Amino acid sequence: MEKKRIRMIVAYDGTNYHGWQVQDNGITIESELNRCLTELLREPVQVCGASRTDSGVHALGNVAVFDTTARMPAEKIAYALNQRLPEDIRIQRSEEVAGDWHPRYCESRKTYEYRIYRAEFPMPVKRLYSYFTYHALDVGRMREAGACLEGEHDFKSFCQTGAQVLSTVRTLYTLQVEEQGPDLVIRVCGNGFLYNMVRIIAGTLLEVGQGKREPETMGEILKAKDRAAAGPTAPAHGLTLVRYEFL
Amino acid sequence: MEKKRIRMIVAYDGTNYHGWQVQDNGITIESELNRCLTELLREPVQVCGASRTDSGVHALGNVAVFDTTARMPAEKIAYALNQRLPEDIRIQRSEEVAGDWHPRYCESRKTYEYRIYRAEFPMPVKRLYSYFTYHALDVGRMREAGACLEGEHDFKSFCQTGAQVLSTVRTLYTLQVEEQGPDLVIRVCGNGFLYNMVRIIAGTLLEVGQGKREPETMGEILKAKDRAAAGPTAPAHGLTLVRYEFL
Repeated sequence: MEKKRIRMIVAYDGTNYHGWQVQDNGITIESELNRCLTELLREPVQVCGASRTDSGVHALGNVAVFDTTARMPAEKIAYALNQRLPEDIRIQRSEEVAGDWHPRYCESRKTYEYRIYRAEFPMPVKRLYSYFTYHALDVGRMREAGACLEGEHDFKSFCQTGAQVLSTVRTLYTLQVEEQGPDLVIRVCGNGFLYNMVRIIAGTLLEVGQGKREPETMGEILKAKDRAAAGPTAPAHGLTLVRYEFL
Repeated sequence: MEKKRIRMIVAYDGTNYHGWQVQDNGITIESELNRCLTELLREPVQVCGASRTDSGVHALGNVAVFDTTARMPAEKIAYALNQRLPEDIRIQRSEEVAGDWHPRYCESRKTYEYRIYRAEFPMPVKRLYSYFTYHALDVGRMREAGACLEGEHDFKSFCQTGAQVLSTVRTLYTLQVEEQGPDLVIRVCGNGFLYNMVRIIAGTLLEVGQGKREPETMGEILKAKDRAAAGPTAPAHGLTLVRYEFL
């Protein structure tokens, strides 16, 4: 039987999952996709995700591929799979791609948003998707610091220690700090992100916004190539993988 | 001991509650507030809410009052109570008011929003706070229909049958239908709302937007004074009580 490769855009609320990647204990996005696809297509299916997001991180547009011999039209898989998936995972699109296409081995542009809610008290309807702070934040300083990170840099200081990667050099095309009423959104677009990189950038910019660090120190942090030089890792629930673009 | 009356602005995510009002079975916003206030102030406390929202309905600014002899400064109660409340209920403000002030017996302006997410597939991070539809909606028609409801009218057709009220006449100051990207927000501001009134208005406007009803029929629906003349009650989770203003 002929095998075809299917690409899916996958959206999820990460609150109730132990991240993307299959684990021995704990339900993950990947394990739910494998289970439901295997039931739907009546053959063992194993998806491969573009971004293995952490526990608690959300996605509007992560990407996964899998191979199947099933005859269901590629575009229909989104509809049929959504009938089986839990309501906090929803396929936004499914389509056939070339048999050798792989989301991790082709150039792409990824956009993440880290959302901060600024107020005296937390707002319950925002609690799952944004990080709450009652600290005053100087947005101008955060923008100044953020601008220093744009471009190609060795982001080793912004990578969780212990991560195994060949290179810690990445290109950040843009880093925007946008005010949306009481929300502050740090939006980053780059060709790739190291483990916890966006959350460490957010944690460092939060310290800059609070006046605990100077915007000019960002260059020194990059130069240090040492995780200890950067700020704390901001909590996972404020982070959303917004979009993947393949070039 | 001297008794004082405290007014609180209460925000909550209604997802996990059986509405506002205390029930024999099921946790409610009111029962959680009573429980935590009684623990905090070490005397039996019974709050009274401005709006007894339904199961699943959210609030950014509902209002509750209670009487206490405790000496804790009124403004501090918000901070102390938030330490005890579950994370899906948060007091936004607490202050002392006159001993005879009552939120249900003074003139007020209430603002509700009904949020609709329009797309081919549901978006998980929006599922708890907006109603999903894949139907195309004609926003111009919805605005035309909505405008017919502004002003003072007998809203009996937009009141759940069985509700016990002396009068079904209310004034709707404004009804806006606002596009926010893929979201459509029906925002109503009025001097009072009948049981399920905003959800029945939303359900009726959704039918107008889909072409199932003509905008011009809104006058006839009002005249009928019959719940059966209006559209269905839209689901609770799309509804948020945004704000109370006391005049």
